[in-house]
Amino acid sequence: MIKKISFVSGAAGFIGSSLIAELVRNGKHVVVVDDLSNGSLSNIQRLLNTGLVSFYNADLSSDSACDDAFAYASTLGKIDEVWHLAANSDIPSGVSNIEVDLKDTFLTTVSILKTMKANEVRSIYFASSSAIYGDLGDVLLTEESGPLLPISNYGAMKLASEAAISAASESYLDIACIFRFPNVVGFPATHGVIFDFMSRLKSNAAKLTVLGNGTQQKSYLHVSDLVSAMLFIANSQSINKIKLFNIGPIDRGVSVKWIAEQVIKRVSPQAKISYGTADRGWVGDVPKFNYSTAKLQQLGWQPLLGSEKAILLAIDEIAVQMGM
Amino acid sequence: MIKKISFVSGAAGFIGSSLIAELVRNGKHVVVVDDLSNGSLSNIQRLLNTGLVSFYNADLSSDSACDDAFAYASTLGKIDEVWHLAANSDIPSGVSNIEVDLKDTFLTTVSILKTMKANEVRSIYFASSSAIYGDLGDVLLTEESGPLLPISNYGAMKLASEAAISAASESYLDIACIFRFPNVVGFPATHGVIFDFMSRLKSNAAKLTVLGNGTQQKSYLHVSDLVSAMLFIANSQSINKIKLFNIGPIDRGVSVKWIAEQVIKRVSPQAKISYGTADRGWVGDVPKFNYSTAKLQQLGWQPLLGSEKAILLAIDEIAVQMGM
Repeated sequence: MIKKISFVSGAAGFIGSSLIAELVRNGKHVVVVDDLSNGSLSNIQRLLNTGLVSFYNADLSSDSACDDAFAYASTLGKIDEVWHLAANSDIPSGVSNIEVDLKDTFLTTVSILKTMKANEVRSIYFASSSAIYGDLGDVLLTEESGPLLPISNYGAMKLASEAAISAASESYLDIACIFRFPNVVGFPATHGVIFDFMSRLKSNAAKLTVLGNGTQQKSYLHVSDLVSAMLFIANSQSINKIKLFNIGPIDRGVSVKWIAEQVIKRVSPQAKISYGTADRGWVGDVPKFNYSTAKLQQLGWQPLLGSEKAILLAIDEIAVQMGM
Repeated sequence: MIKKISFVSGAAGFIGSSLIAELVRNGKHVVVVDDLSNGSLSNIQRLLNTGLVSFYNADLSSDSACDDAFAYASTLGKIDEVWHLAANSDIPSGVSNIEVDLKDTFLTTVSILKTMKANEVRSIYFASSSAIYGDLGDVLLTEESGPLLPISNYGAMKLASEAAISAASESYLDIACIFRFPNVVGFPATHGVIFDFMSRLKSNAAKLTVLGNGTQQKSYLHVSDLVSAMLFIANSQSINKIKLFNIGPIDRGVSVKWIAEQVIKRVSPQAKISYGTADRGWVGDVPKFNYSTAKLQQLGWQPLLGSEKAILLAIDEIAVQMGM
């Protein structure tokens, strides 16, 4: 029998490495394609050791590299589906310069769609982001909310990717799942608020400098819950060709101040916290965020952990990861 | 006194040539930048003759060509604002192949934004499209409608451009106007339903083949009204950095069947009309369309012509243009 291949871009990264463990558990052979610019082979080594996961190094923003990656995966079986997670994940770096988000987040999507069409692969699962909503103030952000005016190039290129996938659905895709991710925490962290705080405390255990005034309120999902939601949505029935879901916890989230306090409690209890004055940490950061996951709950999924527990678990995991 | 320059991309095309006539009337010196892939110098010759309009040939999807175009315009005065109309306007051609819309519609936006940043030009006026809404069925399409799931690469790359402009507004633009165009008719036509029908009748005066079953209902705006609305919005006060408006007539539009009947009545009364069976003309075509322009009306603007009169005027104009 010919093996069914899940082609997973960016899978050596934070979320991808958790996702592919679940895909393997679901009986897939996974081909990880990653340029290791953010990800690392160490994140997936134990999965590579099983023989159920293969690795191919490619920068998928290049059409020819994308063709080559599909050709490689096709030698192992029939590519059944693409999970597209490759993206720039360092949001602040792309705020004033669109190049990195254009190439790593959007042009990877374009190349993948073109190669899917040429190879007649008709199912895509895409890691989009709540950043596509921009800053709509106190508006409850449902999947029907608009206007969509992202305030970072990261959000803009995720929205551009959604748009290209949507157009492709009209002409040659059978299944498109668009997952709008919340802030996600857990192991192995490569970026994000907890990782940043611990990195700063590692170089100076006496002081934690927080960008912004600490009042930014956001909800956080643990990566284990995120992957659970993605597979739940992927396996659900739908009358629509495009399944589009906000994924997130049910609560309204926690403040940056609370996170800073939990981090120092865990790794550096004597540290003093020093806050900035702005209501956002950096240009492109969304200060407040009222994210509806009602549609996903109606589908029948609920997270195991709320924002507080997700943060506390992730603090523990990342402290171990960083040897603190 | 240093001249204030309006840099207008794609201005040798259908809408651009009407727009720049108004900009000149408003006291601007206009630099038309166009690669003449869709546009033509004949559309703007009488304006070039005034000495108030200059022309520069460039494909703005290239960063270096875009730099050169800005450098040229800067020799004539200070670039005050960019009107970005350059785009692929042949929607069906991009339905199954993203290349043309990616390059001509989206990468032109990216290059222009980067060059604006480098040249500290902080005002952009962007020709977006109702195609960004995709097919939301009977939903009334307001600026707040979502989800935005375009069904053509044309719509997708217009939405991607809006997203990139939105992110740029957060970091270095002062003014961004996003105009969501309806179907626009008038002179000098380069594409569109009337132009297509007349082209077919020119090669066979006895028969008009209509793609789709003719029931597609759309609203149409005359280009003179469109330009009037753009300048009205541009000159309006706003508390928002981004002014985002649907532009269109107030009526619910006319059917393709009605347009076909008016066209043959004007240019080929003996022709028989032959309809297809699909409820849309081509993949990516939106069959029905309920487009709200309430926000623009509240601002105080109304079109002079409804869909019917706009179509009848355009039929006359295009018949003359095509010598029929």
